[in-house]
Amino acid sequence: MGAYSTQRSTHDLFKLLVVALCATAFFLSDVHAVDPDPLADFCVADLSPSAPRVNGYACKPRSNVTTDDFVYRGFRQAIATDDQIRQSPTGAVVSLLSAKDWPGLNTQGITHARLDFAIGGVIPLHTHPRAAETLFVVKGTIYTGFIGDDNVLYASTLQVGDVTIFPKALLHFQLNVGNETAITFNTLNSQAPGLLVTALQLFKPNITSAVIEKSFGVDATTVQLLKGTYPGHP
Amino acid sequence: MGAYSTQRSTHDLFKLLVVALCATAFFLSDVHAVDPDPLADFCVADLSPSAPRVNGYACKPRSNVTTDDFVYRGFRQAIATDDQIRQSPTGAVVSLLSAKDWPGLNTQGITHARLDFAIGGVIPLHTHPRAAETLFVVKGTIYTGFIGDDNVLYASTLQVGDVTIFPKALLHFQLNVGNETAITFNTLNSQAPGLLVTALQLFKPNITSAVIEKSFGVDATTVQLLKGTYPGHP
Amino acid sequence: MGAYSTQRSTHDLFKLLVVALCATAFFLSDVHAVDPDPLADFCVADLSPSAPRVNGYACKPRSNVTTDDFVYRGFRQAIATDDQIRQSPTGAVVSLLSAKDWPGLNTQGITHARLDFAIGGVIPLHTHPRAAETLFVVKGTIYTGFIGDDNVLYASTLQVGDVTIFPKALLHFQLNVGNETAITFNTLNSQAPGLLVTALQLFKPNITSAVIEKSFGVDATTVQLLKGTYPGHP
Amino acid sequence: MGAYSTQRSTHDLFKLLVVALCATAFFLSDVHAVDPDPLADFCVADLSPSAPRVNGYACKPRSNVTTDDFVYRGFRQAIATDDQIRQSPTGAVVSLLSAKDWPGLNTQGITHARLDFAIGGVIPLHTHPRAAETLFVVKGTIYTGFIGDDNVLYASTLQVGDVTIFPKALLHFQLNVGNETAITFNTLNSQAPGLLVTALQLFKPNITSAVIEKSFGVDATTVQLLKGTYPGHP
Amino acid sequence: MGAYSTQRSTHDLFKLLVVALCATAFFLSDVHAVDPDPLADFCVADLSPSAPRVNGYACKPRSNVTTDDFVYRGFRQAIATDDQIRQSPTGAVVSLLSAKDWPGLNTQGITHARLDFAIGGVIPLHTHPRAAETLFVVKGTIYTGFIGDDNVLYASTLQVGDVTIFPKALLHFQLNVGNETAITFNTLNSQAPGLLVTALQLFKPNITSAVIEKSFGVDATTVQLLKGTYPGHP
Amino acid sequence: MGAYSTQRSTHDLFKLLVVALCATAFFLSDVHAVDPDPLADFCVADLSPSAPRVNGYACKPRSNVTTDDFVYRGFRQAIATDDQIRQSPTGAVVSLLSAKDWPGLNTQGITHARLDFAIGGVIPLHTHPRAAETLFVVKGTIYTGFIGDDNVLYASTLQVGDVTIFPKALLHFQLNVGNETAITFNTLNSQAPGLLVTALQLFKPNITSAVIEKSFGVDATTVQLLKGTYPGHP
Repeated sequence: MGAYSTQRSTHDLFKLLVVALCATAFFLSDVHAVDPDPLADFCVADLSPSAPRVNGYACKPRSNVTTDDFVYRGFRQAIATDDQIRQSPTGAVVSLLSAKDWPGLNTQGITHARLDFAIGGVIPLHTHPRAAETLFVVKGTIYTGFIGDDNVLYASTLQVGDVTIFPKALLHFQLNVGNETAITFNTLNSQAPGLLVTALQLFKPNITSAVIEKSFGVDATTVQLLKGTYPGHP
Repeated sequence: MGAYSTQRSTHDLFKLLVVALCATAFFLSDVHAVDPDPLADFCVADLSPSAPRVNGYACKPRSNVTTDDFVYRGFRQAIATDDQIRQSPTGAVVSLLSAKDWPGLNTQGITHARLDFAIGGVIPLHTHPRAAETLFVVKGTIYTGFIGDDNVLYASTLQVGDVTIFPKALLHFQLNVGNETAITFNTLNSQAPGLLVTALQLFKPNITSAVIEKSFGVDATTVQLLKGTYPGHP
Repeated sequence: MGAYSTQRSTHDLFKLLVVALCATAFFLSDVHAVDPDPLADFCVADLSPSAPRVNGYACKPRSNVTTDDFVYRGFRQAIATDDQIRQSPTGAVVSLLSAKDWPGLNTQGITHARLDFAIGGVIPLHTHPRAAETLFVVKGTIYTGFIGDDNVLYASTLQVGDVTIFPKALLHFQLNVGNETAITFNTLNSQAPGLLVTALQLFKPNITSAVIEKSFGVDATTVQLLKGTYPGHP
Repeated sequence: MGAYSTQRSTHDLFKLLVVALCATAFFLSDVHAVDPDPLADFCVADLSPSAPRVNGYACKPRSNVTTDDFVYRGFRQAIATDDQIRQSPTGAVVSLLSAKDWPGLNTQGITHARLDFAIGGVIPLHTHPRAAETLFVVKGTIYTGFIGDDNVLYASTLQVGDVTIFPKALLHFQLNVGNETAITFNTLNSQAPGLLVTALQLFKPNITSAVIEKSFGVDATTVQLLKGTYPGHP
Repeated sequence: MGAYSTQRSTHDLFKLLVVALCATAFFLSDVHAVDPDPLADFCVADLSPSAPRVNGYACKPRSNVTTDDFVYRGFRQAIATDDQIRQSPTGAVVSLLSAKDWPGLNTQGITHARLDFAIGGVIPLHTHPRAAETLFVVKGTIYTGFIGDDNVLYASTLQVGDVTIFPKALLHFQLNVGNETAITFNTLNSQAPGLLVTALQLFKPNITSAVIEKSFGVDATTVQLLKGTYPGHP
Repeated sequence: MGAYSTQRSTHDLFKLLVVALCATAFFLSDVHAVDPDPLADFCVADLSPSAPRVNGYACKPRSNVTTDDFVYRGFRQAIATDDQIRQSPTGAVVSLLSAKDWPGLNTQGITHARLDFAIGGVIPLHTHPRAAETLFVVKGTIYTGFIGDDNVLYASTLQVGDVTIFPKALLHFQLNVGNETAITFNTLNSQAPGLLVTALQLFKPNITSAVIEKSFGVDATTVQLLKGTYPGHP
């Protein structure tokens, strides 16, 4: 998941977050893993097409394992340039690092992510169905929070070095409220946490209008509006 | 969680689903439970105020346990009359039965729910952060589905006796598409699954407008509209 | 596991429960599954003969998954006609629905069952070694209970809509005490709970007589009697 | 759980196994424990009456913990003399060592047992609802086995030093087939495995006759016979 | 766990790492927690002296929970000044943040740590008995690795932004090999991972000399030498 | 893992413990297992080279399973003669029995070990990263203990029949302090607990000298000494 090194046209860039999020969702949709206690010292994922599709990854033969399997260098830079991030639909991009992206994570129960924000950038409202998450501010000032089971918002403004927690599978968001770009390093305690972006989940599939209308108390016109505006709509 | 036996005014009724959902959320917010393997034959929850507030319920003294602790009779009838259900905001009500409501479920890793639908009634889009769920149709015809990690809808129309599954923590809904009222009996594999109704989660807390606007690609006016229309808005 | 649509001879029918129970046991004996947290959104079981025999089912390729994988329609009717149920050895039959029967359950930690009772019918004493169970009365009046670690019976009579719980791996039974046929919808919190019918477990294998005699304090003649009378003896 | 040091009358002795088994069941009935990963180095159980009755034991204050909390010396001798063992109902006695008996086991997920057999002695058919078990022969020759989900017996004769396994929650038994007394050291992978002796479970509670009769295909007279002969009947 | 704002004498500083490590060990020794799936949305730890000492923390009443419970600001600065870090026994200090230090982590299965290194500083060889760990380089150049079950070293040199993993409970170390001070942000997937510094574990308790001598193949003189030199010896 | 039946030269014998320990480590390094609840009655490991390398063993076809799969007879004798044990580097040898050695243990969450001690023999300081352990004295007098998170030693002298516990992943040792050879039967609650012998872990891999020196506060000469004396150095 290396950073982009060449400039892209504005038109292309405009869909960057969408692509990143959809790609993430797509990748995750191909993830079949279990998070029990690891019982070998390690089991580096065998991602070859011929590996059996079990619930979790098969193990690469130990004789093929090298030190490089345990290191990930893709977070040295953002997945996109500052310009690309600024022009992406919500002004922020996520680089998710689960076991599919870093086979050494297989059986160890951890996923990481790097978030890059333009000024005012937002990681839109979303949940991770299979993990709790923490956020550590590397650069900038982030306003972030989660909504409890009781529909109460627990939100704070964080500076560099601060850490916050989003409990397992709860709705949350992140917003760059500083005067500069921002970076966070996030942790999820599953090798396949999932990423459900609420707007994409609601409006990308063709859910029966009656369900959307009654769920939000709106009419068909508003539903149509919402389907045409969510970040990443076709 | 017995059924209402007296009629209520239309005004009161109009908020029934909201009350039911919020009450559920409130109850859940007070739930502190663990779902490990049960290691005693049973541990009926001690719900008395003086019981220690541990992560999960303390056990009622065995000498106080009776056969009644293992039976729940509250599902014989719906939580509301047909009229009440029809007049509720989305035409459907949920009666959730977790360990808090039925102490015998404590440590056994199961929650049940009864859903009652008027014609055209909808249980709005929601997730359960801590459980997978199945739905068994007791009466009527239900159109229901979930949205996968890849934002694809998996939906079906079910008849009496059919069963479907909503994988753990994914977004789903239920809609009565038949010509009569409908009833389902649902199962969740946790004693405290949680219930996050998407519209309530998004619009009930006072989330910064910028986050809502960028998450859905809408302007402030539309956000205001949505905040004023969701089922249960004050 | 569809319902039988054609009549069968009394002779054949007489062994129906036995067949159902043994078939269930046989199927279960082929079940190799784990019940950890699911870490993909879903992993529909690959039941093809060429799939690897891992501890739990391998995943069907996502491109082959359809909505039908998440729906089970086999419970619309009983596994047998009313006549067949009445003439079965104990007057009741069980239709078990684990991940082997419904691949969509794989990794989701749930099994369901439909029980059909003639008047006076009994599901004989049994345990599920790997799950707790609940019973929801769909039709009729059921007397049912479990025996605790302390050899105490916790039993009740249930009406339509009532729910009861049998804690994990404890001995239990169900008896139709009403004046009509009865139906229950049961839930077990494992995708492979197992079904150990006590009489079959004790008398079907050729356990050394000394063990049976001393375990029950009876003589060889009584053991021989018991071996010749249990429901399903050859 | 020290060994008896004084002789007892034959009459008293005759009920020894029953007492041991019932006591065990009684003790277990008071066990409230969880077997998750231990997260402190240790948590010695606080068995004082004022300790909170949580699902699992509260922790003794660390300042009160001593080396003795981690050692159990009660297995140096059998729970009974050779004579007592021979005269007990089935010619064998079990000394179970779970977290209630040895507080140091709390949170560590292990229970041990010592079995003592007279010549021909039997530990009657039973299950442990919450654990797998291994048996290690310390003295003598033991014939032992378990019955699989498919009602097939897997049994062997073991010599000193041999080990066998009874999978989780399956029915099993042990029989001394040598010409001398025998001793085994057993392990169960839960701090509260439970012990369900089949004969006690079936005949000690007052289960409705219809259930017993239909479960075993016998008449009321045979049920009455069985209720009057099981080891430990009053 | 705020940073020190005042200078301290060299003499005092010399024991800083020792104090930090021992304090950590002491704090951990008081940690009694479980890492099952969280079943409430959150359960902020009640660290008051009157809270019950269960295996894991009791929950603070929900009415007392505030947004601040979910944020930790103690990592903004190191636990010590650059001078203090340089003068500490191994030239590096660890600031561990488990549920005891940050009650909001309770039931969420995550611990974080900040490591601060002087030039050439080392976090000595250690294990975490109850967690896997990742390390993210915030500043500087770190040489780090773990030793597998097969006694093979898997080590790498990391730059800012790189991440590596130490599998669960394996021996590992970190060394600043750059020309400047270094900082890492670490994650452990347990709320109470433990920290066993090998030298402290071997030489701080009074283990029988014969064991140390035979374990390492050395004589009494060498053991005495080692006992007098480990970082933190009295 | 049968006992050696022929005498070997002193030279060869001298490396016996090393071989045993390294072999164990090597075997373990090839172990890929999970310890979730078993969900089939059993899943005997398929150790054939063509079996898929999943995280845990694939299941042998049930039709190939025999009673012998559930019995292990390799502990009838020690892995070595008394002479061999006496001449081994630390005067003690370990025979580890995990799922790789006994396929019937697969999915059952248990490993056993037999320890054989010459007079004065020691099992050197070590940890098991993935299990708690108990020790049962079969013959002789053993001094043994573990070191807590707080670097405190909890040690005792045990006689035949005594049992002690080493909590999960903590450092421990065993020493024969009697006047005769000794034997213990040990249990670990994982099918793949791992075995990390501290001296081998520290000195067998080529860890950067700076790390060893700073970790123990010694100079390069002492490190060189230690590398040349640990039991099993080449």
